Amino acid sequence: MAADRSTVHGSNLDIVAGNGLLHRRMFLTAGTAAAAAVASSVLPNPSAADALPVEPWMKLPGSGFAGYGQPSKYEQKVARTWNTAPGTTGAGAARTPHHLLNGMITPNGVHFERSHSGIPDINPDTHRLVIHGLVKCAEWTGVKLSVLLQEAGVDPKATWILAEGADAAGMSRSVPLAKAMDDALIALYQNGERVRPSNGYPMRLLMPGYEGNMNVKWLRRIKLTEGPTMTKDETSKYTITLHDGKSLQFVLPQEGKSVITQPSPGLTMNAAGLYEISGLAWSGYGKISKVEVSADGGKSWAPAALQQPVLSMALTRFRMAWHWIGGPAVLQSRATDDTGYLQPTRAELIANSGTKAFYHFNGITSWGIAENGEVKHVYA
Amino acid sequence: MAADRSTVHGSNLDIVAGNGLLHRRMFLTAGTAAAAAVASSVLPNPSAADALPVEPWMKLPGSGFAGYGQPSKYEQKVARTWNTAPGTTGAGAARTPHHLLNGMITPNGVHFERSHSGIPDINPDTHRLVIHGLVKCAEWTGVKLSVLLQEAGVDPKATWILAEGADAAGMSRSVPLAKAMDDALIALYQNGERVRPSNGYPMRLLMPGYEGNMNVKWLRRIKLTEGPTMTKDETSKYTITLHDGKSLQFVLPQEGKSVITQPSPGLTMNAAGLYEISGLAWSGYGKISKVEVSADGGKSWAPAALQQPVLSMALTRFRMAWHWIGGPAVLQSRATDDTGYLQPTRAELIANSGTKAFYHFNGITSWGIAENGEVKHVYA
Repeated sequence: MAADRSTVHGSNLDIVAGNGLLHRRMFLTAGTAAAAAVASSVLPNPSAADALPVEPWMKLPGSGFAGYGQPSKYEQKVARTWNTAPGTTGAGAARTPHHLLNGMITPNGVHFERSHSGIPDINPDTHRLVIHGLVKCAEWTGVKLSVLLQEAGVDPKATWILAEGADAAGMSRSVPLAKAMDDALIALYQNGERVRPSNGYPMRLLMPGYEGNMNVKWLRRIKLTEGPTMTKDETSKYTITLHDGKSLQFVLPQEGKSVITQPSPGLTMNAAGLYEISGLAWSGYGKISKVEVSADGGKSWAPAALQQPVLSMALTRFRMAWHWIGGPAVLQSRATDDTGYLQPTRAELIANSGTKAFYHFNGITSWGIAENGEVKHVYA
Repeated sequence: MAADRSTVHGSNLDIVAGNGLLHRRMFLTAGTAAAAAVASSVLPNPSAADALPVEPWMKLPGSGFAGYGQPSKYEQKVARTWNTAPGTTGAGAARTPHHLLNGMITPNGVHFERSHSGIPDINPDTHRLVIHGLVKCAEWTGVKLSVLLQEAGVDPKATWILAEGADAAGMSRSVPLAKAMDDALIALYQNGERVRPSNGYPMRLLMPGYEGNMNVKWLRRIKLTEGPTMTKDETSKYTITLHDGKSLQFVLPQEGKSVITQPSPGLTMNAAGLYEISGLAWSGYGKISKVEVSADGGKSWAPAALQQPVLSMALTRFRMAWHWIGGPAVLQSRATDDTGYLQPTRAELIANSGTKAFYHFNGITSWGIAENGEVKHVYA
């Protein structure tokens, strides 16, 4: 829940847009994560505090060390939720609880997961990645796909690659060779540790800025080809279906997008007062250059503070101070990337591409705040 | 283990320093993590690869989703090791297995941990942080310490603060008020999720660049004082003891330092060939501006590639290509920070501060490579 700072008063309460948005200077001075969700209270107690109570956990030694640590038991609600296809246990998607997280890094334990046939239990000692098709010869070990392909020797006729996973679904996608030679990685580590089984252990493709499905998990085969392979995953799926029923195929980079994570549905605001609005923005085409926030359903906008470092094709955390007077409000955010692209409204997106462009939906998302503090998804 | 790339040949084998160090351009083109530890093999197979074997994990659906994911069972060796004080289970230190990690982020599960009386099981709903001493009044919730202190109103007589933890040891340290008002944070989140119990849940101090012990975990009290409190943890401990037995007290920022993590003791190199030397550098005074690597015990040095982004007072990953011809070698790294400070040799450090400055030891560390590939700590 956004922190209730209703008793904070002073020079920072400069209104910059409608319905109580305040100047971002409140966060610009912070340099890192500022005021945020916190269940514990901070109490001023100038007199009696020297005689603080001795809490139960101060009366006995705590627990000992562990090889691999876990979150607190009081944080068990910070977990993924998921849906699965009928009759399966592992075909579906598990979603990150962004409303309960902060910063720009997603913890590995709650990383988004999409699986087509569950999480295979791959023994890395027997797993092999084979590169074949329009290549010459060679033997190597490494990470960067272009290094591997250069060592293999790319046949000039090759313009695409096929990437196939070692799950029971054999998930496979076609990738333009230009992207494979540019910044594609064979990812072995995630946030310092080896990629977890649910995210592709022992190796996965990583295509910065591309739609997530391209980052084939449990990678076992790369085949160089003269054109896209048109795999089973590339027929009706992972296309942008337009008004007339036709689909744009191989639209791969994700367009600029943002979403407010605090407050958001699943959280309730306790009382009128000073809040931090916070969320994430990203673009498959480069860096986020600006995020604006509206508290009146898009009538007026004000720039949010961006948390440094702002990295290309990476999640960017934005923060905005808001004085909620307690009435209904509609919160929105819109991102601009360094190509100048501005995240469209939902209406603009539908006018351009219809209502079937589900996987690439990047329209402005609206959260409605009710008078009782409940947060709901609304169309505005 | 550093990857064996003995069969990689080509234009990258430009010697830049003695005993086989190669030009960093091999990594400069990568932009992110380059060749690294990988147990799985990459096989070229231009002909038979279309008929890849169907491995056991491809014949059945894999396991289903989980709320909070875990590393692969094949990575169980990526765990902390620890030592404890006699008769205790939780007083000691657990160490991060840096030789098995990569990148610049330390996974939360294997973060370094120092505890004086185990991990307290703190209920965040009843935990309170009290700020008292030389303050005026007020009530607030937040993160940045300067914001909290400004709201409290700092008495002009205050020049230090006392920070106390809620563990059974009541670990406490004195902090200069200038640092508290500069960049000190009350940390609630670590890598996106709430700080784990072993690292201070529900809140801890964070003093960028300061010795780790200052980052008081399970923070429950901040008292503003006219001078340092001289707590039990500030008598003989956490000082820099010099030749004559006297100690420098309150030397708080960590000096510039670096260490090679791959290869390092615990890893063995299989055979002569092309390796990646990789490690971490940091400075409590700013950004790392340069890391140099030597493979001949400091006789010759060459600059390593630095992984972006390079952040102030943060771990910086460096990489160096090395052609190991199979004979004995002594690997060293030395960091320079953006104040111009150069990490000293062990001999220089001992000449300046003697052999008791344990907690601030930042001398150049040497790994000896034996002819059989074993890696050991040596003095050189």
